[in-house]
Amino acid sequence: MKNFLLQNENAIYYECGYSCDNCIYLSLGSDSFFITDSRYEIDASNSLKKGCELFITNDLVAQCRKLLKKSNIKKINFDPNDFSLSSYLNLTKKLDIKFIKTPNFSKQKRIIKSDDEIKLIKKAMVLARDGFSKFGDYLQNDAQGKSEKYLAYMAQTFLSNYGKYDLSFEAIIAINENAAKPHALPSSKKYHQKDLLLFDGGIKYKRYCSDRTVTFGNDLNNLSSMQRDQKFKNKKHQKIYDIVLKAQETTIKKARVGMKASQIDAIGRDIITKAGYGKYFVHSTGHGVGLDIHEYPNISSRSDVIIEENMVYTIEPGIYLENEFGVRIEDTVVMGSKKAEIL
Amino acid sequence: MKNFLLQNENAIYYECGYSCDNCIYLSLGSDSFFITDSRYEIDASNSLKKGCELFITNDLVAQCRKLLKKSNIKKINFDPNDFSLSSYLNLTKKLDIKFIKTPNFSKQKRIIKSDDEIKLIKKAMVLARDGFSKFGDYLQNDAQGKSEKYLAYMAQTFLSNYGKYDLSFEAIIAINENAAKPHALPSSKKYHQKDLLLFDGGIKYKRYCSDRTVTFGNDLNNLSSMQRDQKFKNKKHQKIYDIVLKAQETTIKKARVGMKASQIDAIGRDIITKAGYGKYFVHSTGHGVGLDIHEYPNISSRSDVIIEENMVYTIEPGIYLENEFGVRIEDTVVMGSKKAEIL
Repeated sequence: MKNFLLQNENAIYYECGYSCDNCIYLSLGSDSFFITDSRYEIDASNSLKKGCELFITNDLVAQCRKLLKKSNIKKINFDPNDFSLSSYLNLTKKLDIKFIKTPNFSKQKRIIKSDDEIKLIKKAMVLARDGFSKFGDYLQNDAQGKSEKYLAYMAQTFLSNYGKYDLSFEAIIAINENAAKPHALPSSKKYHQKDLLLFDGGIKYKRYCSDRTVTFGNDLNNLSSMQRDQKFKNKKHQKIYDIVLKAQETTIKKARVGMKASQIDAIGRDIITKAGYGKYFVHSTGHGVGLDIHEYPNISSRSDVIIEENMVYTIEPGIYLENEFGVRIEDTVVMGSKKAEIL
Repeated sequence: MKNFLLQNENAIYYECGYSCDNCIYLSLGSDSFFITDSRYEIDASNSLKKGCELFITNDLVAQCRKLLKKSNIKKINFDPNDFSLSSYLNLTKKLDIKFIKTPNFSKQKRIIKSDDEIKLIKKAMVLARDGFSKFGDYLQNDAQGKSEKYLAYMAQTFLSNYGKYDLSFEAIIAINENAAKPHALPSSKKYHQKDLLLFDGGIKYKRYCSDRTVTFGNDLNNLSSMQRDQKFKNKKHQKIYDIVLKAQETTIKKARVGMKASQIDAIGRDIITKAGYGKYFVHSTGHGVGLDIHEYPNISSRSDVIIEENMVYTIEPGIYLENEFGVRIEDTVVMGSKKAEIL
């Protein structure tokens, strides 16, 4: 696809090596154009890839229309998820160009990562694991009686290394029954050493995201090592944890190039179902990770996407027992030529 | 307006006392409907205002279409900024109902605050000022050699009271020439005691935002008191600061009910222009504050809105000298019957 229009910040960064919160990117054959306002002039001119022409204006849409008119093209692709109805109407008004709705074409383009992209995601994961490990130390020594909100603040402090790195998303810290909500918001609920604690978080390195979840047990001597075999005082916690762990590790071990995403989803889901908890695994197994925290491929029972080398995605099965507790274990993996590898 | 459709989280909260990141709100005459997915069922049923009917579904748009069809209405208002082209097309497909584009109607509705809303914004400002004050102490004692990024982390720590409150937006910390960018991103630039430092931030209290900017001088004995008369070692810093301060204080003092927003904008702008720096005051004087950090009224030279009692807005003139430094001073005020009052 040679002629297309983008407004999404990450999609634009992928095309031209720069982006900001007010820009339009236009690709017309071998020409490309980056349109933004004067606040971003210096940064954009320093960072845009060679050959991409920079336009500074107060009216991005008008500038874009001018370029489209001048180009004499007949049709252009765009993503209807990427434009509000208002901006679409402003952009297309009385233009004699056919706008072709092409949903998610940028995500599709980004589904297989380059080796350089994988290095950045790997680095983001390494930095994030360091944050998880420091949070483990903290949990072991200083977390008694602290609220989920405060612990989320501390988790983000360690993840971001005191603000040095941006977060991939607001970290989830959920204790016991709150961990039974896959998208729990941190509350004022207090942590005690006998509690199960779920921590889902990640950071960005040079704009590329990481994503990980650890469900912490109560073996305080061992919390900080971030080991996979967490020990719980509560037997049911342990039982559920061990099922999820088996599902997660088996999925990583058995994922292969050439499988459908739905087949990968089925590996862990079958284990959880056979253990009697299938209906408590309420979400899909994973999602792609890259510039966006949620990218392609979706690792879900409804996805026929064929998994290829250099796809990067999460494997994060979970079991959620309402009003009791929940367990999720998540890593971000890259699909290698032979098997998946934790980044 | 009785028949309308909303997707924006804050606009929906305003209507029915609850909101989440996946919901549609539908008002049909005296009936109202809140549509969301199962993750939010418990919270929604606890918090929705009486009479608002809750629907739990995996397909929000389908449920909304069902309700619209059943209602037999002929037309419905919606905000074209609030819907992507995709969701608009899905929602309206083959429905025999006229969708009337009514841009920003919710923001318009929320332009005058109730006394209860003003109390919440006041509380958010009081809490935010406490954070600014603690940051002032920190700047005085421990900030030497720290980077903008680290200082932004500390600023957010104090503002949020260690994660207890959500931020209104990511705080801006900008030193010297970085403060010349109205929307600076924190960098690795280090702070030294002779530097000018701009801090723009705010928190939310029960979803209502606060917004404030302080440009800190070098009088370390006095930093923490957050006084308006900052003292700078650099004479040009002091000169520019005093001009902006005069502009800001005079604007607050002279704003009156019944003025156009553009007249309020002109008060401080005239002072800055007469001092010879008009072209360096590159943005408008302020913006409304409420559930969104940017609401109506805009206090700009192009706004004819008549200012009324109980409007809440910022007054934040600034002077930005490229490659040198910038000064901005900002408070959030409420328009009283007689004059504006800092919240």
